[in-house]
Amino acid sequence: MIMGHVGETSFVTDVVRIDMSLLDNIHGPEDVRALPPEALDELCREIREYLISTLSERGGHLASNLGSVELTVALHRVYDTGRDRLVFDVGHQCYTHKLLTGRKDLSTLRELGGVAGFPRPYESVHDAFIAGHASNSVSVALGMARARTALGADYSVAALIGDGALNGGMAFEGLSDAGRSGEPLVIVLNDNGMSINEGVGGLASMLSRMRTRVEYIRFKKWYRSTFIPRVPGISSALSRAKSWLKERIIPENIFDDFGFEYIGPIDGHNVRKVENAVRWAKEYGAPVLVHVITKKGKGYAPAEKAPAAFHGVGAFDAETGVPKYTGEDFSSVFGRTLTELAGEDPTVVAITAAMKEGTGLIGFQEAFPDRFFDVGIAEEHACAMAAGMAAQGLRPVFAVYSTFLQRSYDMLIHDVALMGLHVVLGVDRAGIVGRDGETHQGVFDVAYLASVPGMKIYAPSSFAELRTMLRRAVLEDTGPVAVRYPRGGQGLFLGDTSAEPCAVVREGSDVTVAAYGAEINEALTAAQTLEEAGVSAEVLKINRLCPLDMQLVLASVKKTGALLAAEDTCAAGCVGRQLLAAVGREGVVLRAARLVNLGGGVLEHGAPEKLREKMGLDGGSLAGAVLEMLHGKDQA
Amino acid sequence: MIMGHVGETSFVTDVVRIDMSLLDNIHGPEDVRALPPEALDELCREIREYLISTLSERGGHLASNLGSVELTVALHRVYDTGRDRLVFDVGHQCYTHKLLTGRKDLSTLRELGGVAGFPRPYESVHDAFIAGHASNSVSVALGMARARTALGADYSVAALIGDGALNGGMAFEGLSDAGRSGEPLVIVLNDNGMSINEGVGGLASMLSRMRTRVEYIRFKKWYRSTFIPRVPGISSALSRAKSWLKERIIPENIFDDFGFEYIGPIDGHNVRKVENAVRWAKEYGAPVLVHVITKKGKGYAPAEKAPAAFHGVGAFDAETGVPKYTGEDFSSVFGRTLTELAGEDPTVVAITAAMKEGTGLIGFQEAFPDRFFDVGIAEEHACAMAAGMAAQGLRPVFAVYSTFLQRSYDMLIHDVALMGLHVVLGVDRAGIVGRDGETHQGVFDVAYLASVPGMKIYAPSSFAELRTMLRRAVLEDTGPVAVRYPRGGQGLFLGDTSAEPCAVVREGSDVTVAAYGAEINEALTAAQTLEEAGVSAEVLKINRLCPLDMQLVLASVKKTGALLAAEDTCAAGCVGRQLLAAVGREGVVLRAARLVNLGGGVLEHGAPEKLREKMGLDGGSLAGAVLEMLHGKDQA
Repeated sequence: MIMGHVGETSFVTDVVRIDMSLLDNIHGPEDVRALPPEALDELCREIREYLISTLSERGGHLASNLGSVELTVALHRVYDTGRDRLVFDVGHQCYTHKLLTGRKDLSTLRELGGVAGFPRPYESVHDAFIAGHASNSVSVALGMARARTALGADYSVAALIGDGALNGGMAFEGLSDAGRSGEPLVIVLNDNGMSINEGVGGLASMLSRMRTRVEYIRFKKWYRSTFIPRVPGISSALSRAKSWLKERIIPENIFDDFGFEYIGPIDGHNVRKVENAVRWAKEYGAPVLVHVITKKGKGYAPAEKAPAAFHGVGAFDAETGVPKYTGEDFSSVFGRTLTELAGEDPTVVAITAAMKEGTGLIGFQEAFPDRFFDVGIAEEHACAMAAGMAAQGLRPVFAVYSTFLQRSYDMLIHDVALMGLHVVLGVDRAGIVGRDGETHQGVFDVAYLASVPGMKIYAPSSFAELRTMLRRAVLEDTGPVAVRYPRGGQGLFLGDTSAEPCAVVREGSDVTVAAYGAEINEALTAAQTLEEAGVSAEVLKINRLCPLDMQLVLASVKKTGALLAAEDTCAAGCVGRQLLAAVGREGVVLRAARLVNLGGGVLEHGAPEKLREKMGLDGGSLAGAVLEMLHGKDQA
Repeated sequence: MIMGHVGETSFVTDVVRIDMSLLDNIHGPEDVRALPPEALDELCREIREYLISTLSERGGHLASNLGSVELTVALHRVYDTGRDRLVFDVGHQCYTHKLLTGRKDLSTLRELGGVAGFPRPYESVHDAFIAGHASNSVSVALGMARARTALGADYSVAALIGDGALNGGMAFEGLSDAGRSGEPLVIVLNDNGMSINEGVGGLASMLSRMRTRVEYIRFKKWYRSTFIPRVPGISSALSRAKSWLKERIIPENIFDDFGFEYIGPIDGHNVRKVENAVRWAKEYGAPVLVHVITKKGKGYAPAEKAPAAFHGVGAFDAETGVPKYTGEDFSSVFGRTLTELAGEDPTVVAITAAMKEGTGLIGFQEAFPDRFFDVGIAEEHACAMAAGMAAQGLRPVFAVYSTFLQRSYDMLIHDVALMGLHVVLGVDRAGIVGRDGETHQGVFDVAYLASVPGMKIYAPSSFAELRTMLRRAVLEDTGPVAVRYPRGGQGLFLGDTSAEPCAVVREGSDVTVAAYGAEINEALTAAQTLEEAGVSAEVLKINRLCPLDMQLVLASVKKTGALLAAEDTCAAGCVGRQLLAAVGREGVVLRAARLVNLGGGVLEHGAPEKLREKMGLDGGSLAGAVLEMLHGKDQA
């Protein structure tokens, strides 16, 4: 592994090697706890350097990890994560945690079989719970604390949640329940004032006031030194005095309101201060919220300047911060097309839930700032708000990752579909997503979107198709419409067949291979391979997954007598089942039929092409499956 | 319609007739606005009497409607709901609104073709938006307000939300965005301190402090009279003074924090006070929250005493409040069985989201108060918390209505399924629910639950099956398990076939009829009818919907050569499609096949048996469908 972070010269590499003397000797969190306090700053410096040099080569979540180095070290000074439960929220800020808990080599980060980019309990006992979606950590931690109490165990439980995730409604549900539960439980609020984008919403402004209210901080200091004892537990008289004071004098905040003891704000880049606060909170014996202030991208100038750009990155030049690879992808085509449509129709508005970079909406925001709404991490609200907009004459387009749209499932049914409202979903990162792993795969939307009454689902496979399908969805269709497109760029297929709900993209006579989205490229590759093996495959491209148009499919399978449907989606609710059911209902008898999809399991992290191979969804595997299916049947 | 509310004597009826003189002359909300202020109390008295007498005969949501009579009258004095948009939250408190907006005859309430029990835009322009699920109103209203501003319209927008619904996370997401939006918008918080059950969580305790903080109220009064002008808009100097004061002196609450102008608390049974406050709020020109205190069940002694019991009621004796019909149903069997299981296994805990009466958990709470968790309206939190509990060794059972579990879809995948945690779902009111209408039908869970990795789904049809399946789910199974059961009592089928994933409950040779849950009763009725018509139907009962066991199904269709699958669920992801797909994959050729289900549409309110008839799911229709299918195919 090359450690140099400002180039490949041997001089820098040597310097860095010397610098890693502390980290090299950390084999588990017990080694962190054994360090003398005065060594901690140096450890943090080494971690930060390692992160910058490794991620500049591999990509990953840089800015949030740089911001939470000291905080993570402090948490490991207080908690024994081998038995205490430390619940990460979202979890992409877990790299320091992984380095300190036996996963020091991040050179396989996010690769198939390598270290995951998110906490993963199968990977280490130190990862208390899976993370990837936001705002669940308080709920999970409360469940764990209640289990601990119910079963008479004595470990400690803490949740680490960012200010961005705190905006999600579930975090409030959790805080409301946890605060009143009385369960010993610590919520560490890592407030970098940014979430993924700049702070949005009333919550961000509330936190910002809390960060700067000097009178309040002074009062709290005096109050705490006077009324709160150093040892756990407080006397009933003190408790009464405290309540009396709180209700009458202290400016309350929502955390006090909900029943938490609030401590903060605390400088999150001072290991000892954070360690002291969290240790006090852990011993307090009741729900405590520790408010820690950190800086996203801390210690790396390019990331401090543009933390959003360094949220999730590919490889970059460590010295300048300039990305090594850039190029057009489905997200950028989506954003540009939507901006064009907004120029043509003044009722078009765009909504994002804290993902304006990821969904390609920066240009839209610049062009139409008054018609752009970033609601923060709040997919439920985003969807219900879109419904309200549509009811009153706007054409809202909600751009969202497939995996996060799962949060809006009820709103899609209740708020959008029951009234048949014209809300358009730009479903980004649909299908196999790859390196972000099981929490981020967009493999359920075909199933859950199809169950929404009246939903149309388009599946473009090329930039050209995304453009025409999005135009139709926004300007021509009515009712709920989803346009789902893969992560990254286009492949073999570059055409535009979007005029029809289903298209023959390659004619053949021996077998029908049906696919959509990015998988069409694999189907075309398979057909090429099959031709070389003397099998003539007809490739059908399904453009509209719902409602399905069966005419072309039936005509094709009547001709070929065999069907293979390939989809990078879960088996339940997949298109292949519908095709087979329709074929059966029509009484068409097939020689052979096969559905290739992701089944009912969980798909881990790894390069998309490796995952396709593993799941039998690459062109070679599909060709093999066709041969096996045809020969198997022929021989039977 | 009989108007007497304390009996059937002509004396009482006469008195009541005389009493309705005001209500009789209200043909639309303009008539409410035209009334002199001194007549309003009398109007409210008449409305309350009408509600008690009508609902004692028909059932419906009584307590919440009695509590919001004055509030609703006041809102109609301020807003012109023909063009202003008044968004109800949950919406079961809309009866007074319906009476005042041209729907004075509630004798068809909740019947097929009659007046809906919830706001329904297809029914009246005065119903601004659909309602039925909680916590969406702030988001919807903000969307409408933003549409109004974007399109340059000038109507007003208000949301009416209860304290129970405010606990739901989406309401916080909406408040956070709305408060900072600056959009003129009024949120009326109808705080009856109860939600459906008694207040739970930190939010309830916060509201309760706000209700009683006298110093605060006095200060606010002085502050408002001094600093807030009577006309809309405030000068910039005043605004600065206000901010200075707020930050330094006024005890803030979360609504202030989020950017709302907060007014309250206000006596919600004083029409004029509410009217004045809401009028001021409407004219203020920025986001305002009006905190109104009401009493659930107000004006009817039995409901005031036991508001939870009078939340949703069947017919009852108006004089005593005693229900006319009681009896065992799936919910009560569920609750009793779960209490038994908890007695056997100390790790079993029960979770509800504000539905302990509806889900039959009162007895569990009494028997095991420390192992019972009512989290309020917070289905996302409930599910993630259950996952945390399961990760640490408890066996959590989340009892929830099918329709509300839609809120937990993402948590089922992300928090429960990715780690294969053993969380049990008691999915109540699965299938056609009936009179509560489209917002409450439990017709999506088969589709969305099947897409959750590793999910098992059991579908009991009798109390006996619910008992054995729940026992297996809780004590024997691992991973996520759902037991879904219908609303109400059992029917024709009283057996217990739960030992097998699929069972032949009636043998036959001409056609296979597959069904599950309550629909099995219709399948058996159909088979009886078919026998009389000379057709021998084999009835298959699917006990485990996921994973499906195809052995028996394949054997049966190989014998009969024809399949009809009947399900009271949406077409997408239905079991019938899987059966047909599997039959096709196995190369079994059918003479005829038919899937009878709810298709892709929206199912309105009405008696369940009427809805079944309408959708072709009653026994008679199924028999007809079989005859048509067999004869149609035979003739072809």
